[in-house]
Amino acid sequence: MKKLTINASSQYDIYIGSKLLDTCGKMIQESLSPARAFVVTDSNVAPLYLEKVISTLNNCGIKTHSHVFPAGEESKRLSTAESVLSDFAKAGLTRNDIAIALGGGVCGDLCGFCCAVYMRGIRFVQLPTTLLAMVDSSVGGKTAVDTEFGKNLIGAFHQPSLVICDVDTLSTLPERYMRDGMAEVIKYGCICDKELFCDLEKRNEADLYNNIEDISYRSIATKKKFVEADEFDTGCRMALNFGHTFGHSLEKACDFKGYSHGEAVGIGMIIASRAGEINGDTAPGCTDRISKLLTKYNLPCKAENHDALTLFAGIANDKKASGSSVCFVLIKDIGEYTLKKMELEKTAMEYFCKS
Amino acid sequence: MKKLTINASSQYDIYIGSKLLDTCGKMIQESLSPARAFVVTDSNVAPLYLEKVISTLNNCGIKTHSHVFPAGEESKRLSTAESVLSDFAKAGLTRNDIAIALGGGVCGDLCGFCCAVYMRGIRFVQLPTTLLAMVDSSVGGKTAVDTEFGKNLIGAFHQPSLVICDVDTLSTLPERYMRDGMAEVIKYGCICDKELFCDLEKRNEADLYNNIEDISYRSIATKKKFVEADEFDTGCRMALNFGHTFGHSLEKACDFKGYSHGEAVGIGMIIASRAGEINGDTAPGCTDRISKLLTKYNLPCKAENHDALTLFAGIANDKKASGSSVCFVLIKDIGEYTLKKMELEKTAMEYFCKS
Repeated sequence: MKKLTINASSQYDIYIGSKLLDTCGKMIQESLSPARAFVVTDSNVAPLYLEKVISTLNNCGIKTHSHVFPAGEESKRLSTAESVLSDFAKAGLTRNDIAIALGGGVCGDLCGFCCAVYMRGIRFVQLPTTLLAMVDSSVGGKTAVDTEFGKNLIGAFHQPSLVICDVDTLSTLPERYMRDGMAEVIKYGCICDKELFCDLEKRNEADLYNNIEDISYRSIATKKKFVEADEFDTGCRMALNFGHTFGHSLEKACDFKGYSHGEAVGIGMIIASRAGEINGDTAPGCTDRISKLLTKYNLPCKAENHDALTLFAGIANDKKASGSSVCFVLIKDIGEYTLKKMELEKTAMEYFCKS
Repeated sequence: MKKLTINASSQYDIYIGSKLLDTCGKMIQESLSPARAFVVTDSNVAPLYLEKVISTLNNCGIKTHSHVFPAGEESKRLSTAESVLSDFAKAGLTRNDIAIALGGGVCGDLCGFCCAVYMRGIRFVQLPTTLLAMVDSSVGGKTAVDTEFGKNLIGAFHQPSLVICDVDTLSTLPERYMRDGMAEVIKYGCICDKELFCDLEKRNEADLYNNIEDISYRSIATKKKFVEADEFDTGCRMALNFGHTFGHSLEKACDFKGYSHGEAVGIGMIIASRAGEINGDTAPGCTDRISKLLTKYNLPCKAENHDALTLFAGIANDKKASGSSVCFVLIKDIGEYTLKKMELEKTAMEYFCKS
């Protein structure tokens, strides 16, 4: 088992290892000693792990309640949050109690948001069961729900009090969910962990599960650096958006139904890296290496019907209201990010749409 | 014009004076330089001041949007927040823009909550138009909406970026709203401003409007002390709840329709002070002085059909889930509070229900 500690506005531990769901009750009791725990999970995860988690909590003397919402991004709405919050209130949850997010990114974001606003903030534990949630969304305190006007439009910064990543849950994960997480892992390699990137290049895809504890640990260690340096996302934390600006535009262009988040981010990284190479900001050969790595983990490198130009139009449209200049994340080389502020309408368009 | 600065997790100024609504555009532009401002107000306040505020903002080059919700506590719900948030999104509000709460406590709490969760937090300005909002709710960052399960059950700590109290708005205020605010002013005197308390004793009620700038300033100065010492309400800020524990139980017993918040708090202060006197924690004569002061400002000192015993039962029922001991706020003497932790079921019951 590996451990990391985040030192942000609050301090909390992250445990990464095997069979942790079996013993998480003890870990939770020892760090947070709640009287009661309210487990929030979805209809895919509940049949797999809810009983196990409830049972370890009960064995440690923690009373439990639970709320199971329908699996899927469509549940990440204010209406679901309202129903979770009602159940918190019906159970008489107080500031001495905790909630537990058992599941992937949707569950963590939703449950975290409910905990941010219930009684102006109660403690919560993240038990991520997808690679994406482990290496990205469960760490750093970004919680949110979607609205018809935009993803994550309503939310709050609210750090978890404990994160427990049981990597065994990844073995039950459909392959496309693993790919989604791998895109973020590759991103960490690109922006500041050359060693991780090179390791992924050397390893076979078959090796992945054998090394997933180490890979997760190193990814979270990078996220930790950015969260600690810029908890409220007003500066360098933006580097974590490498590939995300174009990626998000692609997801949106396909109405969030065409490409998964990880697939879109992979394609976005290629666009950013290629533009960097053409304009002399990125070392030659980077795009090729990222391409090969994405391909190895079954991630696409190119969108079928969307080129940089059409995706750029989407970005420009999105950012119109916030002024004319935008900060893009580029890499100088594998393992070294750089932020570049560009005027949106002219400079940036020329930068990204040359090729 | 008087000025106070709050130094909490963020720093912000509070201005108190006359004719400030006429010039608030300039003050807002100078401190926050937003491109746009979204004004949230209610159907009582809009006809009185919305045009004036919009016009001073526009004159300073700030583009404006607005949302008017039906006046009343019933509007302080998640559904109203959702509709305000939709309007924020439709207007394309970004983190560079601001919202403005123009109105009383409901407006400030609701708008503040929307700003706490829109894009994980945007800046907002409080323009309180009631005495209660000026001396209490607009300062300190507590934002919330009510649910069917409890008042302020969903909320967040989110400090305003600027507070502008135009005391001229108080002249349009129905008398019962003034009384409501005066109960909190008297509370500040009780817990830590003996001079303010003595001043209120000396003054005639007719003097009130002539001295309201000074009275507001001194009340906010006390609130400032507690907010700075305990922003997230885990310790001494609790002193601000003097009279509120029993007051809240009374409001609830009457389904929030019998006594106004200020009336209930006044009655709660009398119960706490009398119990303190009987049990030797409060100097003899305090209850009498508070009683006379409440009466002078047309506030009741006794609930018609609810004695300390029935109200205590309501408190016990409310607090059951959070454990057996509760911290009550008492005063040692006028201007000096003390916190007393008591076992709810036995000690506290005996303490408060002796008389």
